Amino acid sequence: MIELSATEAAADIARGAVSAEDYTRACLDRIAAIEDKVQAFAHVDAEHALAQARALDRHKADGGRLGLLHGVPVGIKDIFDTRDYPTECGSPALAGRRPDIDATAVRLLREAGAVIIGKTVSTEFAYFHPGKTKNPRDLSRTPGGSSSGSAAAVAAGMVPLAIGSQTNGSMIRPASFCGVFGVKPTHGLISRAGALNLSRTLDHVGAFARSVEDLALILDVLVATDAADPNSRAYASPRFRGTAGEQPPLPPRYAFVRTPMWDKADPDTQSALEDIAKDVGAQEVDLPSDYTGAWQALRAIMSAEMAFNLGHYVDQGVASKEFTALITEGRTVTAPQYQAALRDARRYAEDMTYIFEQYADAIITPSAAGIAPLGIEATGNPLFCSLWTLVGYPALNLPLIANADGLPIGVQLIGAPGRDERLLRTARALIGSLG
Amino acid sequence: MIELSATEAAADIARGAVSAEDYTRACLDRIAAIEDKVQAFAHVDAEHALAQARALDRHKADGGRLGLLHGVPVGIKDIFDTRDYPTECGSPALAGRRPDIDATAVRLLREAGAVIIGKTVSTEFAYFHPGKTKNPRDLSRTPGGSSSGSAAAVAAGMVPLAIGSQTNGSMIRPASFCGVFGVKPTHGLISRAGALNLSRTLDHVGAFARSVEDLALILDVLVATDAADPNSRAYASPRFRGTAGEQPPLPPRYAFVRTPMWDKADPDTQSALEDIAKDVGAQEVDLPSDYTGAWQALRAIMSAEMAFNLGHYVDQGVASKEFTALITEGRTVTAPQYQAALRDARRYAEDMTYIFEQYADAIITPSAAGIAPLGIEATGNPLFCSLWTLVGYPALNLPLIANADGLPIGVQLIGAPGRDERLLRTARALIGSLG
Repeated sequence: MIELSATEAAADIARGAVSAEDYTRACLDRIAAIEDKVQAFAHVDAEHALAQARALDRHKADGGRLGLLHGVPVGIKDIFDTRDYPTECGSPALAGRRPDIDATAVRLLREAGAVIIGKTVSTEFAYFHPGKTKNPRDLSRTPGGSSSGSAAAVAAGMVPLAIGSQTNGSMIRPASFCGVFGVKPTHGLISRAGALNLSRTLDHVGAFARSVEDLALILDVLVATDAADPNSRAYASPRFRGTAGEQPPLPPRYAFVRTPMWDKADPDTQSALEDIAKDVGAQEVDLPSDYTGAWQALRAIMSAEMAFNLGHYVDQGVASKEFTALITEGRTVTAPQYQAALRDARRYAEDMTYIFEQYADAIITPSAAGIAPLGIEATGNPLFCSLWTLVGYPALNLPLIANADGLPIGVQLIGAPGRDERLLRTARALIGSLG
Repeated sequence: MIELSATEAAADIARGAVSAEDYTRACLDRIAAIEDKVQAFAHVDAEHALAQARALDRHKADGGRLGLLHGVPVGIKDIFDTRDYPTECGSPALAGRRPDIDATAVRLLREAGAVIIGKTVSTEFAYFHPGKTKNPRDLSRTPGGSSSGSAAAVAAGMVPLAIGSQTNGSMIRPASFCGVFGVKPTHGLISRAGALNLSRTLDHVGAFARSVEDLALILDVLVATDAADPNSRAYASPRFRGTAGEQPPLPPRYAFVRTPMWDKADPDTQSALEDIAKDVGAQEVDLPSDYTGAWQALRAIMSAEMAFNLGHYVDQGVASKEFTALITEGRTVTAPQYQAALRDARRYAEDMTYIFEQYADAIITPSAAGIAPLGIEATGNPLFCSLWTLVGYPALNLPLIANADGLPIGVQLIGAPGRDERLLRTARALIGSLG
């Protein structure tokens, strides 16, 4: 049963072929079987999950209206507030913290009938200091971070869906390392209200799944304007499943963007990406050399905003050395430098629209430098995500490549801002054309 | 003819009792008579002004549609770009600078038929280093700053209307010192596109006139949403003249707010304000003592944003010592301190709405510490304006008080944010009840 996609499971539950309880139990059994090794969860409460599932089954039996995710277990990165589980943000400083209300994203999932099966491991404050999670594709390797547990749980078949967040490379990198589909939508499309505030300029909520179809399903639930998020962006009547399921009116055109970080990619990654770009006839587009400033701008914004939002944990002496170093750096950023970085971010975001206007429906670029690195003492490098996070464009990880040992390498597909539905449609076309 | 209010002049011109040319000539004659002493203008071009007036007269003779300010000369603070006059922002660094296009505020005035009669003196970059202008009420005194020339020109009868700007106290203070009416509307109501960018968080465009009625007239022209201003605020169908001309449905209630700066006010100002508050039955409202943080927040935001926007003039060695000191200070503000100041500004703005909800239609508070100080080497203290600028609430100066020598002291009237029309109506009621 854990082989079902979320879309299939929701359909089976809706037509009564499977109960929410049975499907949830299958996920819990899978968790029980391998959680000792993978360590994807910070908190999981089998009885509470089954109670939710039974309540959903009763609701259905009573003729209640079913949400899009009725009976489907979802993993929640442990930086999203939940009223029924602790929310500890990967930090001992928040051990045992129990919020009173759900984050907006969690509330939307619950309203859609999802079973909130547990909280997945986040690195400390969704930054670099790793949690306990291992990569289910190879337990000697990192799952990536900071959404480590969510990516691993989906990859290991523990849940069909999980949510995470990205402030630099925290969705796309673990999706690449764990070999799952991941989406970081346009900045502001999914509310961050009730999620840990690292950097409101850069924080994105995203989702992991095992297909593009399932990503469309969860986006139809999560994308909604929210006054509680200062960057919430209006998105008229999202219909991700509808658009993602359509054929594009014309064959998609692709741009292949190596980015100024190309030299940091492994030879395997470079050649695999070049092959795909060639296969689909992608137009090579070189970014101007001054685009390296984007990485500096992200660093300044992220460190300065995190110093403002989370610096008190360093002052309390409860932070790791990685986190302390970042906050210390952020405190040295001056206000004029910070404003310059924000201005630069806006400029890059405006500049790069020319790629979509002139060349392509989507950009093909690496998700990460290569396969997941060995060891779980570090979570790998977000370098191939930073630019797309800074500009807030929608990004997908597509697990289309494997190295000689079968370990995944992700293809990152970038869309025009606010055209997230079309990006999913393009992704399906790309997969089909490579199929 | 220069005794006419703008409203009267516009009506006389519209019905053909006076020509735009004659009225403009009367203003130019007044300028010619006293500009040597007052020095209100950075640039004035009599021939160009008359040419505009004659074109407006021809337009009328041809049966053209007349704007609200058809034929009315307006003075423009020399930080607003104008396509027909230099725009030098009070700095030798910009000597002879000639923009290609009008600032939005200037364009709106022109479209309403105003004669752009000249550019009025600004302090250097609208900060503290003074220009040449003297106070027309007493030439041995400062007119205040930074909108020195606009306030002085209106006070001296050179023009019935002028526009200026306020980032700390640059509208209300010179209005108080020169004894004219001045308005600093809610943040974002008047576009700053094409005006010098000091601090987009704090910059406001405002206007000077010799009556509330005339302020309503020019606000009906200037208040408009503008996509070119990132803080532009939608304001549904402004009808300042209509609302300002109405009787309030109930007698207005007033709050008397001394602010934590009360001890800095002269005894004359203190007793005059207390008398007025008593006369109108104002409720005394004490701000919490931690409100002194608002002055610190304004300082951090202003210095940091001005360092970012204008710091290069200091690097070029073309700035005054006052300006250099501010920029130097702004460069030491850290990004976390800056974010904290922005957060504090939002909190004060939200907090203070309780005054309008619980007590009053408008706040009565001093416009300045007292009469205009002697000398023109400094422009006086903006201390009584800072809080209201930081929170972005609408503010009026009402020239209701004179000291024993006949020198003006202003009453500052503060309204609820976005209720600028009602503030004008309340101001007329206040004047009536004191009359």
